[in-house]
Amino acid sequence: MIKGAVVGSTGYAGQQLVWFLHNHKHVKIEFLVSHTYAEEKFSKIYNNYTEIIQNKCISIHQMEEKLEEIDVLFIALPHGKSFNIVKKALDKGVKVIDLGADFRLNESACYEEWYGLEQRFPELLKDAVYGLVEIYRDKIKKAEFVANPGCYTTASILALYPLLNKGIIEIDSIIIDAKSAVSGAGRGLKVTSLYGECNESIKAYGVTGHRHTPEIEQELSKAAGEKIILNFTPHLVPMNRGILATCYGKLKNNISQEEIYKIYKEFYKDEYFIRIADELPETRNVRGSNFCDIGIRVDERTKRVIVVSAIDNLIKGAAGQAVQNMNLMFGLEENEGINILSMAI
Amino acid sequence: MIKGAVVGSTGYAGQQLVWFLHNHKHVKIEFLVSHTYAEEKFSKIYNNYTEIIQNKCISIHQMEEKLEEIDVLFIALPHGKSFNIVKKALDKGVKVIDLGADFRLNESACYEEWYGLEQRFPELLKDAVYGLVEIYRDKIKKAEFVANPGCYTTASILALYPLLNKGIIEIDSIIIDAKSAVSGAGRGLKVTSLYGECNESIKAYGVTGHRHTPEIEQELSKAAGEKIILNFTPHLVPMNRGILATCYGKLKNNISQEEIYKIYKEFYKDEYFIRIADELPETRNVRGSNFCDIGIRVDERTKRVIVVSAIDNLIKGAAGQAVQNMNLMFGLEENEGINILSMAI
Amino acid sequence: MIKGAVVGSTGYAGQQLVWFLHNHKHVKIEFLVSHTYAEEKFSKIYNNYTEIIQNKCISIHQMEEKLEEIDVLFIALPHGKSFNIVKKALDKGVKVIDLGADFRLNESACYEEWYGLEQRFPELLKDAVYGLVEIYRDKIKKAEFVANPGCYTTASILALYPLLNKGIIEIDSIIIDAKSAVSGAGRGLKVTSLYGECNESIKAYGVTGHRHTPEIEQELSKAAGEKIILNFTPHLVPMNRGILATCYGKLKNNISQEEIYKIYKEFYKDEYFIRIADELPETRNVRGSNFCDIGIRVDERTKRVIVVSAIDNLIKGAAGQAVQNMNLMFGLEENEGINILSMAI
Amino acid sequence: MIKGAVVGSTGYAGQQLVWFLHNHKHVKIEFLVSHTYAEEKFSKIYNNYTEIIQNKCISIHQMEEKLEEIDVLFIALPHGKSFNIVKKALDKGVKVIDLGADFRLNESACYEEWYGLEQRFPELLKDAVYGLVEIYRDKIKKAEFVANPGCYTTASILALYPLLNKGIIEIDSIIIDAKSAVSGAGRGLKVTSLYGECNESIKAYGVTGHRHTPEIEQELSKAAGEKIILNFTPHLVPMNRGILATCYGKLKNNISQEEIYKIYKEFYKDEYFIRIADELPETRNVRGSNFCDIGIRVDERTKRVIVVSAIDNLIKGAAGQAVQNMNLMFGLEENEGINILSMAI
Repeated sequence: MIKGAVVGSTGYAGQQLVWFLHNHKHVKIEFLVSHTYAEEKFSKIYNNYTEIIQNKCISIHQMEEKLEEIDVLFIALPHGKSFNIVKKALDKGVKVIDLGADFRLNESACYEEWYGLEQRFPELLKDAVYGLVEIYRDKIKKAEFVANPGCYTTASILALYPLLNKGIIEIDSIIIDAKSAVSGAGRGLKVTSLYGECNESIKAYGVTGHRHTPEIEQELSKAAGEKIILNFTPHLVPMNRGILATCYGKLKNNISQEEIYKIYKEFYKDEYFIRIADELPETRNVRGSNFCDIGIRVDERTKRVIVVSAIDNLIKGAAGQAVQNMNLMFGLEENEGINILSMAI
Repeated sequence: MIKGAVVGSTGYAGQQLVWFLHNHKHVKIEFLVSHTYAEEKFSKIYNNYTEIIQNKCISIHQMEEKLEEIDVLFIALPHGKSFNIVKKALDKGVKVIDLGADFRLNESACYEEWYGLEQRFPELLKDAVYGLVEIYRDKIKKAEFVANPGCYTTASILALYPLLNKGIIEIDSIIIDAKSAVSGAGRGLKVTSLYGECNESIKAYGVTGHRHTPEIEQELSKAAGEKIILNFTPHLVPMNRGILATCYGKLKNNISQEEIYKIYKEFYKDEYFIRIADELPETRNVRGSNFCDIGIRVDERTKRVIVVSAIDNLIKGAAGQAVQNMNLMFGLEENEGINILSMAI
Repeated sequence: MIKGAVVGSTGYAGQQLVWFLHNHKHVKIEFLVSHTYAEEKFSKIYNNYTEIIQNKCISIHQMEEKLEEIDVLFIALPHGKSFNIVKKALDKGVKVIDLGADFRLNESACYEEWYGLEQRFPELLKDAVYGLVEIYRDKIKKAEFVANPGCYTTASILALYPLLNKGIIEIDSIIIDAKSAVSGAGRGLKVTSLYGECNESIKAYGVTGHRHTPEIEQELSKAAGEKIILNFTPHLVPMNRGILATCYGKLKNNISQEEIYKIYKEFYKDEYFIRIADELPETRNVRGSNFCDIGIRVDERTKRVIVVSAIDNLIKGAAGQAVQNMNLMFGLEENEGINILSMAI
Repeated sequence: MIKGAVVGSTGYAGQQLVWFLHNHKHVKIEFLVSHTYAEEKFSKIYNNYTEIIQNKCISIHQMEEKLEEIDVLFIALPHGKSFNIVKKALDKGVKVIDLGADFRLNESACYEEWYGLEQRFPELLKDAVYGLVEIYRDKIKKAEFVANPGCYTTASILALYPLLNKGIIEIDSIIIDAKSAVSGAGRGLKVTSLYGECNESIKAYGVTGHRHTPEIEQELSKAAGEKIILNFTPHLVPMNRGILATCYGKLKNNISQEEIYKIYKEFYKDEYFIRIADELPETRNVRGSNFCDIGIRVDERTKRVIVVSAIDNLIKGAAGQAVQNMNLMFGLEENEGINILSMAI
């Protein structure tokens, strides 16, 4: 059994991790860490675990004394909060999967520009494997430390990677118009997360300045072999879960929709969690699952391609992908414990 | 492997059955039957099964020729539609689990009064075991034919059974005020099921005349050993899944909340799917699961007890309970294939 | 022009008051008071007023110096917070409409028991007219100080008043099962008000102990001429606005549904804002309006009557009713400025 | 009093028209026409009008005999259904405001290409004034026949018009990513409009082929003085009302966000219903109103401008705009009867 623990276990991504780890037949949850709810029973915070999970949450301080007991540590904290924990865990030989943003950007300067914080351990960046399995599977298998991708970034990169890798679109033509469920804002107390402020409304936010932008650019630049700058516009949609990314690019040459479909199916042919379908994706079809559904349309009139992708932001965009990474790091079947289908209704 | 099939597989309860049967390690889905979508790929109707389920739906007519191939038939049709299918399947030695209402009421006259239809096979009633596992487990184990309980009835009976069985409340004092998600109305095309007509609103409906009333009365009468007549009031709530039943009864004698809790915990002590908790239930904590959560409050001022239960109407109220029944009928572990927790967010 | 002001103007009830007062042709808003947002533009807090309302919020301290400038003060604060403000305003000859709970209960002891707070100005209770217009219209016309009813209480009392006034039901048989939208919990930052915690779920809360209970009992006792104790059970429903109250009572004598309808139509025959209809109410039909819709069913089997009422909790249950009171207090047409219909979709 | 009538009065746009016309102090509704509900009381279809509107719906056939009685006819029918009605009404000297699509496209060939239907009265096209008041106010004042713009088109054109009129962006760079509430699909019975199929999900639809595309292109081409081809991508969002259009264009020259704001404020300076604000719009701030809120962001990195607009699809995108047109056609104040603010919660 893999002995695992979750820091930030009572946040929305963290509790989703608990869900998967509890069900995982090769994992035993050693402890759950919560800053806000230390000493409280986890099932009092999330009543869906009544009679199922008996753990009391422990504090970060308490955790530090127990790092020896575990094989893998999942960290689901806001950016800037995981630096010390990552360092200590790695020093003790614990594998780390960090769901936060602190080690996703390869360049310290880029991190500091977008997050307004110092990258405190730049020397760890070379060890931090970007945990997008479909792109970095081989590296992840050998990794001790994985920086788990952001939710918007997962949906965006998976949608656009083949187009850039195959040189199909103009690299300065990319627009990603993304729509996220409210759980993406986390469980923190903010007026903008209140039911009355989100329900029955849609808005754009963080336009031109959202922090997932450089992460998407970094990975798509690698795909293209050229530096890419793009527009990323997130929106807030009144639903619990799901991200839909509608991605636009200008075609370099004449290419049909069918040909692009063929390229995508070939590119992702071994990927269980990527489904390329004729129907355009709906988030409900991936809700509760680790799948990323992708549909493609070519507009002959404007010579643009539109790729639409859908994921569950808490699963393929966070906890599910983290478990997918863990499975690879520990030599397990990649879809072990996360092979659940959406109940679309 | 148990060879199974689902009639009405493209309705909301039917597709939920497909979800569970597909994941069940001892079941192979032999065929899916759909009146509306015969000859169409099931995954075209429900895109969450893209690349996962390859079956084409077959018609009821085609099914009749293939009954020999299966061990168990699940029927998820509107009332009045399953008579012939039940008869033919039983005659061929196929076990039947009928999620419809046609064989739930023990008395033909009662069926005819509430449903306005003739009970066409009254002789089958004696063989139809009422499939509420927590009450009729032993009979179900030996059954060839199970009438799976209704959604409201499951929530209501489980909430009130111990009170009546132990003689705690006045039998003429029962009021059940129940609230259901919209999926309870099924996938049929009705103006009242349109998004714009359900969203952002709550209403009562079927007041004093809902067809689940006699079913609840029948079972609670057995619990009490006396004929019970009660008020059952259903409401429609803007959400996809879930039923909350708020049940009221007048206490016969002084009894504390703690004592009633003790009685419930004892009564349901071996039941994995029943959780008696101090916190009052929320439907989100059972959504996507087969659990029934129950909370209890005694009002010292009015000498009433209020029992609140929550289920997922499509699971414990339909498909999950059907699989629970199947597991028993075939000698499997009772929670095999349905032991999934709610993702409460 | 009536010069008015609102304390607590940035809460959900308060902002609804601003909406009505802004549109009211006989009212000028002199100032808006906000503890949390003093010095900020009201339209920055509620962007729907961009370019429409220019006021900056002022603090409660600033308000106290400006009481002379106004004719009427609306107070929309949590319980316990309005005592001093009420006193000061009345002392300066300003009419007061208090949307909070502090002066609704006639007995100080009852207030102290249910709210756990001292009634600081018991001598003001005799002047505080309970602002349920349909019952106390004549008193309100002459009032200087109105205690505006609670949201649940408005729906419950209007539903049950005729039954008790006419002695139709057993007074110890009353159960009110009420369902409220999330805005009823206000704009305060609580985990339980987050989108992710409310959406797609229903729960009961405050069972047997909700503070609107004694308020309902007080008024229905007056209707009956006897002391009434009853069960009131509130629920939280995933929608922005609306309360549905499903009220149960045992009939004393045989009386038909038609006769009860007749009694209700007679009782409310001059009431513009009460609609007695054959169809059972849906909250969407009153959402955004000051109407209270009522439907009635008699269950011949159980000899119970079920009365269902629907209101918009922020309007008839708060701000609309407050304006209705103001209209009467100032000799205006009762429905001036609040005669708006629901957009049901 | 203007004597008016509505054809298609029981559809979602139609009933919204009834709402406004009923409240309009210069309009009397002479009759309401409904194909589906002829002979039924309008308030039985929409219970929010109980005791308020007494009209029975009449059939289209009955209407034809009563055209003489009215001054203005509003038509809210699916495309292809209004040809004869428009012709007959105009022939009788009745002013016509057609909320359908049949006379919005200036070129018959374009209509026939996108709608797959013959333009039956091309000779009427020269008289059909495109009813976007902010652009065509003077023509509308003199019009007998107005083609009321589509919902997506209203949001899109108002967002982009100044950019194109002032030559600020590359004309081949335009992408409109629009998000609509479910009421945009109307009240017709379609599986895709069921609550269970829309709730808790977002999807794109009609990608590259939506029929509002040529309408947007037609009007923006006029703004630019050049033929424009663009990408328009609609999405379905789980809410009752609202459209958000996120519009992207490549800047021709360096221009700051402030300068573009200045241009917009100047361009729309006399427009009551257009609000240019620093905050990005949310649909809830225009829901229930005739406003169009617009916010602007310039991305210095990519040299693109993003303009976001929000409207209520049933009001500024349909019925409110129709009344705005009527007001002009009859010499009334432009915002008469439609000057209502959103209740944002």
